[in-house]
Amino acid sequence: MTNVKLTIQYDGTNYCGWQKQKKENSIQEEIEKAIQLVSKEKVKLIGSGRTDSGVHAKGQVANFFTHSNIPVDRFKFALNTKLPKDISIIESIQVADKFHARYDAIGKRYQYIIYNKDIRNPIYRNFAYHVPHTLDYKEIEKATKYFMGTHDFSTFMASNSNVKTTTRTINKFNLERTRDLTIFTIEGNGFLYNMIRIIIGTMVEIGVGKIKGNDIPDIIRSKNRKLAGHTAPPEGLYLDKVFYNY
Amino acid sequence: MTNVKLTIQYDGTNYCGWQKQKKENSIQEEIEKAIQLVSKEKVKLIGSGRTDSGVHAKGQVANFFTHSNIPVDRFKFALNTKLPKDISIIESIQVADKFHARYDAIGKRYQYIIYNKDIRNPIYRNFAYHVPHTLDYKEIEKATKYFMGTHDFSTFMASNSNVKTTTRTINKFNLERTRDLTIFTIEGNGFLYNMIRIIIGTMVEIGVGKIKGNDIPDIIRSKNRKLAGHTAPPEGLYLDKVFYNY
Repeated sequence: MTNVKLTIQYDGTNYCGWQKQKKENSIQEEIEKAIQLVSKEKVKLIGSGRTDSGVHAKGQVANFFTHSNIPVDRFKFALNTKLPKDISIIESIQVADKFHARYDAIGKRYQYIIYNKDIRNPIYRNFAYHVPHTLDYKEIEKATKYFMGTHDFSTFMASNSNVKTTTRTINKFNLERTRDLTIFTIEGNGFLYNMIRIIIGTMVEIGVGKIKGNDIPDIIRSKNRKLAGHTAPPEGLYLDKVFYNY
Repeated sequence: MTNVKLTIQYDGTNYCGWQKQKKENSIQEEIEKAIQLVSKEKVKLIGSGRTDSGVHAKGQVANFFTHSNIPVDRFKFALNTKLPKDISIIESIQVADKFHARYDAIGKRYQYIIYNKDIRNPIYRNFAYHVPHTLDYKEIEKATKYFMGTHDFSTFMASNSNVKTTTRTINKFNLERTRDLTIFTIEGNGFLYNMIRIIIGTMVEIGVGKIKGNDIPDIIRSKNRKLAGHTAPPEGLYLDKVFYNY
């Protein structure tokens, strides 16, 4: 038995998300089908975590066990010939049997892309959040620092979530502006459901002056979802990298 | 009567191209339908030129005449509410009655984007040409200079074309590399059918060593399509800007 770790890119536009669902197309199911075509085995693919419908990945990670004697580094090429064009395997390597893509993840990095022009751009319609308002990037950049470190992030969690602890640590949160796009990078030991999309929605409201950057510490402490901004749409979100100890 | 000049962006993936065709979706037809919904008039939209199926635009230009009393600068917003999400009007202005989007165009600028990694990227599948081979960018960059200036470009024209003259002037041809992408910018007084895509295909063959950069002057002089490289695919091509004297 070989434990195979896959690194996966996808355009999430046409999927219900990572996780398998009855009657809907999921990334997980597409890859499981491709593995079965290649290895002639039915496998269960373990992802590092879910992504929602419309959310993309540049570096999702998953693992599965196989008896196949296909060299592990060839798996990516074999799978890519079977996969639809909106999913790619960019790496396939052998890992220790104990490796588990979800339980062993010690951190994740996401990117969130905003297209900030008055009129929507067709090229980015599925790949960035179109914000037509003028944004105060100085205020936005100043506000990022309040999110850094370890906090109870219940304010920034979809209200119907059910988790053991709502404390998370953010160790990177910055933004970079290109000619057309604003790219946020946010890295932490884990994220609550919709946490990044609510943080970005809050950033946009800081940018238009609806929320004051200085109020973020109080808003975090309030644990009141209503004091945070809106949930930014899925199309701007990219799972960039999953971190492991080994 | 008002002569309205539109500047248009589109994702050409789901269209047969700019030009209206029986039984197929075209950009031109979508915009004509939107104008009719907004102005209650049936109009003929004159584009600066065709783009092929799969080719995109950041700055296509077109004009039409209207009796509507909608303020011209509001037309873009009205049209965008009627247009599909893969087409946007980014500017609508009044121009002199004699303005003709095709006859008055004195030049065009295109971009061509290459994604040069071993494995395809789902995000770019409709927006860049995936070249998996290692490319020699020094050779490619050196070769751009041979295309500059005024030449008979018959070598770089789809073989079934029918035009009065095959002489064109290229006054800009450069490339820029970002982390992921190689972006060619090419500007000239006009381009033959498939000219840019054949030039880019030739550049890729120079990059892999199949064609020598130094041979380009001879290849241009040969007027033999077979000596040029392949036709690069449409998804990497963007009509960036159309130039007018007024």
